[in-house]
Amino acid sequence: MSKIVVFRPIGIISSKHTGTGKTPIQPAYAEGCLGRAEVFPEFTEGLQDLDGFSHIYLIYHFHWAGPARLLVKPFLQDIERGVFATRSPLRPNTIGLSIVKLLRREGNVLHFDGVDILNGTPLLDIKPYLARFDRIETTRNGWMDEVDEETAQRRGRRGYKGK
Amino acid sequence: MSKIVVFRPIGIISSKHTGTGKTPIQPAYAEGCLGRAEVFPEFTEGLQDLDGFSHIYLIYHFHWAGPARLLVKPFLQDIERGVFATRSPLRPNTIGLSIVKLLRREGNVLHFDGVDILNGTPLLDIKPYLARFDRIETTRNGWMDEVDEETAQRRGRRGYKGK
Repeated sequence: MSKIVVFRPIGIISSKHTGTGKTPIQPAYAEGCLGRAEVFPEFTEGLQDLDGFSHIYLIYHFHWAGPARLLVKPFLQDIERGVFATRSPLRPNTIGLSIVKLLRREGNVLHFDGVDILNGTPLLDIKPYLARFDRIETTRNGWMDEVDEETAQRRGRRGYKGK
Repeated sequence: MSKIVVFRPIGIISSKHTGTGKTPIQPAYAEGCLGRAEVFPEFTEGLQDLDGFSHIYLIYHFHWAGPARLLVKPFLQDIERGVFATRSPLRPNTIGLSIVKLLRREGNVLHFDGVDILNGTPLLDIKPYLARFDRIETTRNGWMDEVDEETAQRRGRRGYKGK
């Protein structure tokens, strides 16, 4: 049977988002939302060279998420979908993934824009966003293709007015 | 102090890659490398709607990775870089991230192309790749901007000849 996998946070993410219901659902709807990650000092050396990248992945723990559900209504649509076809936090493994714009690094602190992450979130990993690997020409975007841009903007911001 | 985070695999990834030294380092260098994920049957319902997406993220455990290092030489360059500025598996939390092309779903089995993942890898999460959120216009790609495409192709494939 499957073994468990144990991770330890490498830092903590700070943002102005203190309530899950008002946090923008994706960085695309969080422009102007500044935030930072304080990486624990013992990992500072691993941040070297990161400031060369305009965008980075943050992988983190949805520490506040409720029990997993296999079918969920996505934030952007009122139709139940398989949870793995959504970015909902109510997943079997509560792993969050955001691509944020890296503004600067000050020692062990990273400052970024486009933060859709709740204040106090444990950070698990940081990876560079590489256009060569990660900028994909999709041909199908599933149920998301049914959501028009105006609806996505309105529902995705969840009350955040933009900068 | 930081608490530990415990995850349980939701499935197992199968591929033809049985040696780490010969596995392409990114899906971009693994075109034609077919693979599949067998998601454990209890999660099958969560896969609903996933086949609408041409590309998906696989988040998995680098279960074979050695001890973490804070400075590593990336596969594509002989210069030491901070590990968080690379996609090296030798990270404090051994979390892997790949974007693969989803070919089809058969019940609890996902078939994909572009597999840069070692056979037997524990799968932790699946998310849809959404062009609206994930196709980013980067302005800087760090040290990767120093690597020309021919070098990247040659070193990234690690012996894989392509289809």
